[in-house]
Amino acid sequence: MTLSKYLPILTWGRQYNRTALSNDLVAAVIVTIMLIPQSLAYALLAGLPPEAGLYASIAPILLYAVFGTSRALAVGPVAVVSLMTAAALSNIVEQGTMGYGIAALSLAALSGVILLGMGLFRLGFIANFLSHPVISGFITASGIIIAASQLKHILGIDAAGHNLLDLGLSLITNLPEIHWITAVIGALATGFLFWVRKGLKPLLQRLGAGEGVTDVLVKTGPVAVVVVTTFSVWAFGLAAQGVAIVGDVPQNLPPLTLPSFSPDLLGQLLLPAFLISIIGFVESISVAQTLAAKKRQRIDPDQELIGLGVANIGASLTGGFPVTGGFSRSVVNFDAGAQTPAAGAFTAVGLAIAALALTPLIFFLPKATLAATIIVAVLSLVDFSILKRSWGYSKADFAAVLITILMTLAMGVEAGVSAGVMLSIVLHLYKSSKPHIAEVGQVAGTEHYRNILRHEVITDPAVVTLRVDESLYFANARYLEDRIHNRVAGDKSIRHVILQCSAINEIDLSALESLEMINERLREMGVTLHLSEVKGPVMDRLKEQHFLKEMTGNVYLSQYEAAQKVRALC
Amino acid sequence: MTLSKYLPILTWGRQYNRTALSNDLVAAVIVTIMLIPQSLAYALLAGLPPEAGLYASIAPILLYAVFGTSRALAVGPVAVVSLMTAAALSNIVEQGTMGYGIAALSLAALSGVILLGMGLFRLGFIANFLSHPVISGFITASGIIIAASQLKHILGIDAAGHNLLDLGLSLITNLPEIHWITAVIGALATGFLFWVRKGLKPLLQRLGAGEGVTDVLVKTGPVAVVVVTTFSVWAFGLAAQGVAIVGDVPQNLPPLTLPSFSPDLLGQLLLPAFLISIIGFVESISVAQTLAAKKRQRIDPDQELIGLGVANIGASLTGGFPVTGGFSRSVVNFDAGAQTPAAGAFTAVGLAIAALALTPLIFFLPKATLAATIIVAVLSLVDFSILKRSWGYSKADFAAVLITILMTLAMGVEAGVSAGVMLSIVLHLYKSSKPHIAEVGQVAGTEHYRNILRHEVITDPAVVTLRVDESLYFANARYLEDRIHNRVAGDKSIRHVILQCSAINEIDLSALESLEMINERLREMGVTLHLSEVKGPVMDRLKEQHFLKEMTGNVYLSQYEAAQKVRALC
Repeated sequence: MTLSKYLPILTWGRQYNRTALSNDLVAAVIVTIMLIPQSLAYALLAGLPPEAGLYASIAPILLYAVFGTSRALAVGPVAVVSLMTAAALSNIVEQGTMGYGIAALSLAALSGVILLGMGLFRLGFIANFLSHPVISGFITASGIIIAASQLKHILGIDAAGHNLLDLGLSLITNLPEIHWITAVIGALATGFLFWVRKGLKPLLQRLGAGEGVTDVLVKTGPVAVVVVTTFSVWAFGLAAQGVAIVGDVPQNLPPLTLPSFSPDLLGQLLLPAFLISIIGFVESISVAQTLAAKKRQRIDPDQELIGLGVANIGASLTGGFPVTGGFSRSVVNFDAGAQTPAAGAFTAVGLAIAALALTPLIFFLPKATLAATIIVAVLSLVDFSILKRSWGYSKADFAAVLITILMTLAMGVEAGVSAGVMLSIVLHLYKSSKPHIAEVGQVAGTEHYRNILRHEVITDPAVVTLRVDESLYFANARYLEDRIHNRVAGDKSIRHVILQCSAINEIDLSALESLEMINERLREMGVTLHLSEVKGPVMDRLKEQHFLKEMTGNVYLSQYEAAQKVRALC
Repeated sequence: MTLSKYLPILTWGRQYNRTALSNDLVAAVIVTIMLIPQSLAYALLAGLPPEAGLYASIAPILLYAVFGTSRALAVGPVAVVSLMTAAALSNIVEQGTMGYGIAALSLAALSGVILLGMGLFRLGFIANFLSHPVISGFITASGIIIAASQLKHILGIDAAGHNLLDLGLSLITNLPEIHWITAVIGALATGFLFWVRKGLKPLLQRLGAGEGVTDVLVKTGPVAVVVVTTFSVWAFGLAAQGVAIVGDVPQNLPPLTLPSFSPDLLGQLLLPAFLISIIGFVESISVAQTLAAKKRQRIDPDQELIGLGVANIGASLTGGFPVTGGFSRSVVNFDAGAQTPAAGAFTAVGLAIAALALTPLIFFLPKATLAATIIVAVLSLVDFSILKRSWGYSKADFAAVLITILMTLAMGVEAGVSAGVMLSIVLHLYKSSKPHIAEVGQVAGTEHYRNILRHEVITDPAVVTLRVDESLYFANARYLEDRIHNRVAGDKSIRHVILQCSAINEIDLSALESLEMINERLREMGVTLHLSEVKGPVMDRLKEQHFLKEMTGNVYLSQYEAAQKVRALC
């Protein structure tokens, strides 16, 4: 029981049958074809040699198949995490050096340990502090940065930077050195891929092609571009003309590697690794839950953390870099009919064969082609509609999106996501520090009490009922003192104050001391304090405190009962 | 009107009369006598020459009298802020150098600007994030560190450090160099002052002395010790024997000074200045509110920030260091009958006379005596009962107190208070990320709905009503999805889910998207979603959203109405 909880493979493996096998095999073939160019491209984005992308897709997929709870999730390098990897590493080591690859292994190992630890200690809730608007803003801004970072490959120039300002400046400065042949290849490849996405599908549909065939053809677009541009570079000798190509890629299975354990390096990588873990987890769990919901399957978030943690540790031991469950590859896997994680295992075998046998074929693959596939993939992530939606709903959410987008573009991914999370927490705390406090009265003909400003209600000049719409805790305790004091001090007819506690979900020690103070001050003014509708968990705690004994009035189960009994006291 | 809001002196000054004058003068004489040794001692604690303590008590008191709203608050150097000043400065400049004094001026200026800015922009709520338990723990731990830091003066040895570990180690290492004559003076002075606090009062009362006389005699204890030990050192030539004395103190009014505006220095001082401002403000406002409540006076927190800000800027321009409203001096001022801030102004005149004329008299004052007055004063702040109280009430509050005390003792004041505030915020967020969700039923014979686990209630197997005891926001949105899914998925008889929203004070965009998801998933299971008791401010926002149109059920004003109408649908 417990073992199968930590090893979901024991659950689905037991029921594995021939139908599942054939479905999984078909899905694996399709995903493998799609993953070859994607893996190479994301390695390029992460600043690593192309084979690292293949390696990062093999062991992690196998390990996730054993430990993960999603049936369709495909684990490997993804755009945003690859960008974050590049941003984290290039602050520390120079790209292209030995140390850079080793630092990538360390980042994956650290991220794996963080994810695994969060899973084992059930800390997955930490990821909930990334609000939906912050994630949307972050993904949009990251997409823009990724696209900008690939322009240098498209144009055949040098450029550096991990935010839009640095990148833009660097691109403009180096624009005169544009390599025209590369630029033509890049532009054609990008244009073709956009057309495949936007133009090919309607065309095929008009020609009467089935839904399935259309989808497969559209998904193989990148493969076609890879084949055509590689062939062209070889056939016309364009590499000699200065078109940057992938070049020699070692022909072997993923090597066994060891990350560096230098405390200095790990210290510098800790914060980026944490952010990569959280972002990667949120992206992965969203995809997993969306796909699981379609088939009424359950995802266990804590076990997902364990699965992703082990996958990243696997990546660090086999020449990879940080990985997570990717959106596009998982959707393709799901649509292609994958039934179990075995599909992932077969994909791993397919990629291993590619790493062993196919790498000589991509010697002449132009980097501009890989850049084009990245640009087309990430621009579909860019979506500014969240700005409009959040503006219409809540200015706090809008502020969080806006600061996330601006900070990510201006300062890079780590600053962007940190600023977004911090701001959403600060705004949440700010709102709860000045809670809505409604004075309520009885809705005629019912036992229900509502805001006197919004509803036709019956009130009594000697009895004021206040409903505090927030838990009472340190941040708003003093505010409550002020509000009650101001309401009562100015009105001599008031003899009773009832606090309706239906929206008070907690009273912490600071707030308890404030209530004692409020009770004391009201007593001095000759006003009695009552409570109504105190919730069970709040009452459990108050019961053992002196406060209830010192309180001048009583606690009532319902506001209606409180109003009846208090009126009788007047 | 507006001017008198920013200059409270215009309000009380207009009504100033002869009675107020004589009351204020009496209070000023008593406070002046008490403040002379106290000011010298806190300058020593802050690592500054003794006259800085006098200077820091003159201009700030005068300025606070003009801008402050409390009638009895006495502004000047206080123990905790002096300790924080020493901790902040000794990280940057060496004690005893010219730079140290200038850095103290800069710290006061920076703190003044921060306080003034918080007052003008109405940011006083920031101080509310210091919870009562964190403050209690911080004051207790600071008291211990202060007492430990003064032991070196009592023992006549060298010691350094701004946390208990460093201080303790340093004291033990240097213990063999103990200066015995100093130690005897220190021990006698400390013992006498403790006896004055604990033994003298009962003795005088037994001898039939009046309450007033007793209090005055007890408060003048430190003055007696200063006089006796100074005389002894002079009479027996103990300074030549190696007893550390105050020595030459310049005989003049507070000098005009300018803080350093070096961006480098200000950058290093920014965080400590912020913490000093917040801690100082909280200490000051607590004292001011306690004293004001006794006379039904009002304190305006934002104007207090302005008053303290101007006082600190004043301190920085007249050779002082960071100041705030002190507990003991304010209580003495209040008890001695001070009626208006003019009492403070008269005190300032008294201290100015002391600075001009009395400084030669304290040439032979042993530093051990000053240390003794500090130790006896701060040990009354040490109070571990907050640990017991918070343990009995809430483990989260207990954790915040404990971490504040331990971190302050082990790492110093800045780390301690930061850790306490961070932990209380994190625990608050953690709690609200896993809210209490109660399934409720109708309390028989009423229209009131309560938890089915705690009350005898009527339920319906086809209708589940859930009351979420927390605002819905990013941190708990996903948790709610899981809880509802788990409750409904396992029970085929459920046809309606009602969310009773009486405790939901906000629904942010993340939570709105979760509600859309919940509605969608319930629809797929053939279950209808209803809402009841949605609050006005929450409804205002939801009204304009698609969600309400897409929701399978309705929104009802009261839970009772919802239950009636939904039962009719079954």
